[in-house]
Amino acid sequence: MENMLSDIIVSNRKHTANGQVATYIPELKKANGDDLGICIIDKYNNIYCAGDYDKKFTIQSISKTIVLAMALMDNEWDYVFSKVGMEPSGDPFNSIMKLETNDTKIPCNPMINAGAIVTTSLIKGKNLKDKEERMLSFFRKLAKNDSLQINNSVYESEKLTGDRNRAMAYLLKNDGIIEGDVNETLELYFKQCSIEVSVVDLARIGLLFANYGIDIETGERVISENISRMIKTFMVTCGMYDASGEFALKVGIPAKSGVGGGIMASVPNRMGIGVFGPSLDKKGNSIAGLKVLEDLAQRLSLSIF
Amino acid sequence: MENMLSDIIVSNRKHTANGQVATYIPELKKANGDDLGICIIDKYNNIYCAGDYDKKFTIQSISKTIVLAMALMDNEWDYVFSKVGMEPSGDPFNSIMKLETNDTKIPCNPMINAGAIVTTSLIKGKNLKDKEERMLSFFRKLAKNDSLQINNSVYESEKLTGDRNRAMAYLLKNDGIIEGDVNETLELYFKQCSIEVSVVDLARIGLLFANYGIDIETGERVISENISRMIKTFMVTCGMYDASGEFALKVGIPAKSGVGGGIMASVPNRMGIGVFGPSLDKKGNSIAGLKVLEDLAQRLSLSIF
Amino acid sequence: MENMLSDIIVSNRKHTANGQVATYIPELKKANGDDLGICIIDKYNNIYCAGDYDKKFTIQSISKTIVLAMALMDNEWDYVFSKVGMEPSGDPFNSIMKLETNDTKIPCNPMINAGAIVTTSLIKGKNLKDKEERMLSFFRKLAKNDSLQINNSVYESEKLTGDRNRAMAYLLKNDGIIEGDVNETLELYFKQCSIEVSVVDLARIGLLFANYGIDIETGERVISENISRMIKTFMVTCGMYDASGEFALKVGIPAKSGVGGGIMASVPNRMGIGVFGPSLDKKGNSIAGLKVLEDLAQRLSLSIF
Amino acid sequence: MENMLSDIIVSNRKHTANGQVATYIPELKKANGDDLGICIIDKYNNIYCAGDYDKKFTIQSISKTIVLAMALMDNEWDYVFSKVGMEPSGDPFNSIMKLETNDTKIPCNPMINAGAIVTTSLIKGKNLKDKEERMLSFFRKLAKNDSLQINNSVYESEKLTGDRNRAMAYLLKNDGIIEGDVNETLELYFKQCSIEVSVVDLARIGLLFANYGIDIETGERVISENISRMIKTFMVTCGMYDASGEFALKVGIPAKSGVGGGIMASVPNRMGIGVFGPSLDKKGNSIAGLKVLEDLAQRLSLSIF
Repeated sequence: MENMLSDIIVSNRKHTANGQVATYIPELKKANGDDLGICIIDKYNNIYCAGDYDKKFTIQSISKTIVLAMALMDNEWDYVFSKVGMEPSGDPFNSIMKLETNDTKIPCNPMINAGAIVTTSLIKGKNLKDKEERMLSFFRKLAKNDSLQINNSVYESEKLTGDRNRAMAYLLKNDGIIEGDVNETLELYFKQCSIEVSVVDLARIGLLFANYGIDIETGERVISENISRMIKTFMVTCGMYDASGEFALKVGIPAKSGVGGGIMASVPNRMGIGVFGPSLDKKGNSIAGLKVLEDLAQRLSLSIF
Repeated sequence: MENMLSDIIVSNRKHTANGQVATYIPELKKANGDDLGICIIDKYNNIYCAGDYDKKFTIQSISKTIVLAMALMDNEWDYVFSKVGMEPSGDPFNSIMKLETNDTKIPCNPMINAGAIVTTSLIKGKNLKDKEERMLSFFRKLAKNDSLQINNSVYESEKLTGDRNRAMAYLLKNDGIIEGDVNETLELYFKQCSIEVSVVDLARIGLLFANYGIDIETGERVISENISRMIKTFMVTCGMYDASGEFALKVGIPAKSGVGGGIMASVPNRMGIGVFGPSLDKKGNSIAGLKVLEDLAQRLSLSIF
Repeated sequence: MENMLSDIIVSNRKHTANGQVATYIPELKKANGDDLGICIIDKYNNIYCAGDYDKKFTIQSISKTIVLAMALMDNEWDYVFSKVGMEPSGDPFNSIMKLETNDTKIPCNPMINAGAIVTTSLIKGKNLKDKEERMLSFFRKLAKNDSLQINNSVYESEKLTGDRNRAMAYLLKNDGIIEGDVNETLELYFKQCSIEVSVVDLARIGLLFANYGIDIETGERVISENISRMIKTFMVTCGMYDASGEFALKVGIPAKSGVGGGIMASVPNRMGIGVFGPSLDKKGNSIAGLKVLEDLAQRLSLSIF
Repeated sequence: MENMLSDIIVSNRKHTANGQVATYIPELKKANGDDLGICIIDKYNNIYCAGDYDKKFTIQSISKTIVLAMALMDNEWDYVFSKVGMEPSGDPFNSIMKLETNDTKIPCNPMINAGAIVTTSLIKGKNLKDKEERMLSFFRKLAKNDSLQINNSVYESEKLTGDRNRAMAYLLKNDGIIEGDVNETLELYFKQCSIEVSVVDLARIGLLFANYGIDIETGERVISENISRMIKTFMVTCGMYDASGEFALKVGIPAKSGVGGGIMASVPNRMGIGVFGPSLDKKGNSIAGLKVLEDLAQRLSLSIF
């Protein structure tokens, strides 16, 4: 298995040259575009790694899956879905237009920025600090890694360049979709994006979703079966930005990407996968990471379709 | 099993009162809104039916899956996907707007009308008559039912009220997305929608896709494995119009609906399902049919997620 | 005066090099991009010409003003404006999107293609031939030129490449905005665009509108005062496609352009102006023609603002 | 003249019942919906008033004309128009969509909210306080009324409910269209909207634009002729929100409305007009005020077309 993974990494590293690291958040520019790594944890708790599996990177949009899970645990589901939709949007992740043209004014789904700002606003807590602590500790629990931390320079950089997200948040506030303080919600949003992980963390979280919310080692139920299924479903229909449809056709497994270069995949009842390759294609997905998953899905017959 | 199906039909028939039969094609208004029926064929070729399983209805948009399969068999895939996209659109099935705002001018996917007009234009044949015969005989082969016919009064009705589809076709022609004669393509499009089927036919076709393209009885490969997977993937991401995301979350199986009231579902490696209930919800899906599938998926744990 | 006009033509001819002749209708490609001519007829019936004033060209979108006048004479105004709006659209002349996103589904105004297809459908007549004759004779009356003819090769070319207009017409038909036969309406639309004129004809028609509908020579009322004002108003708000606002700011007189290279301007109570320069800018307006009118408006203080 | 004005007010007051006062800014709800008043100042400095001419109200969007004038005086015109367009939008005043779909990302024109936020950002000053003072003193100079003040409770109310404007401002900031501090720009924007005026003030300012920027009493040039013309042009093409086209057709004079119920009109070389009627139609224009201007334009033949 590890040989096969090494093989896949080696043969796909060339694709990194066709993309580029994210530039809209200055701190992300510092990433090394050549990096490519993978980790798989299967349901027997075997861990396989290859390539740059020990690099740290910020989780970015992959956090949207975890925050959605949290929002669904903190609130009635009907309430959550009165504020964010269930449908793929067909638009780029940071599109504002649909907020205006949709009859309901709610974001299409929780995997685009506007939708994740909504789910973030639904996280419970006495105050901002309390919400932050609850959020970080939930991320740590899912990753089974107490050392997860917010990368402060990325966070500061997100905040400094986050005017488009600010625009969305104020529009959502104006339409009554988010309640409470806009700046507090944005703070929490920028922080969740800035949590630093490795592919091992992503594989671990992916495995939890793959295993229907039960910790493979302890047997503890961390997330309900239904929420686990919902997260995987959103990963399929909207997980790879406006390339989700193509990814479903070519790879066929639930996955969520982030502009930090990470991809978390979750193969139902089989395994969790973490991939890292900060060189991105035009839609914001790890350009070599996609190829790695395509190869892997083929070799191991991972497609759910 | 048949008891359970009867049970599900009986308990969900009440939902038919909350929708209404399609009205935009006059012939479809004649359907009986109370009808509700189901057929399941599993991979051991067991056939289970309940409710109004013997009613005939026109296949409508469900044909889009079969015509896509045909287009993929008749052409290079790269060529097909240079003319129709792979992404869910987030818009209603008959939306024109995205054709104008998308950079590429191609329809988002082959499950919306504009996309299906494109795949229809890709069906090979010496002339219109030849294309019609090839198409009808392919539908018959998939359904294993040589008596499938076009319902002529529905076809005439489609043709008479098809100005919106005509508009799309001319726009696609203008942008070079479809080639050949527009009226011929539309003729073929209206005819494919007017093929008359029963839930047994739908279950049979669904089973073929579920079984990765191999006829369960004869072992014959009818469609390639890859095309079978692609069809099921499109069914998940775009099969239920702009309620596809919600259906994936609530039911979690590949399915395609039509405004005639049919739904074809395909549970990978397990079964094909046909449902019929012509009373539709606002998005054009069988209102009671959705509930039937939701119940069934729950009871038999059919979700692929 | 003629010296000044010659001067303006000479000094602005260089701008023709920065544009190009219309290409989407093959016949229009044959125009000579260097041509530039002007004719002014003032309210004392003085006629001044300069440059290529004797060239013939097809009237194209300038016909929209005349067909609107005819629609308003043939129908109740409330009826006309229940089928076409009064507002500038901010979109290109051949945009379809607003037809779908507007609540009313009616075209924004009669100066864009969709709107002119509507006004064309409102022209009365026993049959297509009768409508054509009424239309052509109305154009002749306004231009005081009985030799106006349809250029048949342009007409055939329009018809051959008119799929985008066909798409609009079918969408309008589908939404009940146009009634009667779509092909007949399109026939009449393509023909009106293909009427051949010179700058003298345009100046004469422009003068009629400038003089509130009264023939300067005979004193005959040809068009009502109200309709004359309405035409000039639409020329200001929507006459130069999606550059109407800029033209109003820089030139400040009612004007309507066509992709044949013509511009008709109408200075209230003063003069009619015809300009011809088939080299177009990106928005479809005569690139040197705009400059000619800007110079002229400045020198003669023509702005109505 | 005053009799005629009284007559017009009396006969049109009934229309106030068909609209309602603005509600989205709570302070504006306090207005008396029955109020209707008018003031005309002609170029011989005759002042005619009728109805509720002595009521005070906030200037709201009418300020957009004055702030545009100021932006054009404080900056190079090319710079201004690289940040805000010249075209009518066809969309409601507070639409965000075009900011995203336009290639240039700049607001369509300075008469919609997004455009006015841009012109506001272009006002020069050492700091916010300095900018405010310059702005208020410019408004006072144009109205020849040193007692003009900001209505603080309206200002506070605007600020409290201004999330949609905040969203636009952050989007403009994100795209580099506005520079400097977003909150400072918004502060100045909310303040300009909250300046309290009477119809006499509006008529005085309208007269200045009508008189090409020259103070009728002192002969002093306050604004350049070109800027005066530009303001009147924008008033025609975009002054009455997305009813500008209809207003141009029915009334035919440059005018700008505000949701406070005011309308300022400017008849070139003839007169300035102020109207007040806080009962608004669905597009945000004074419902009876429109009728008053329609009557007046008819009786005095004011149309510029």
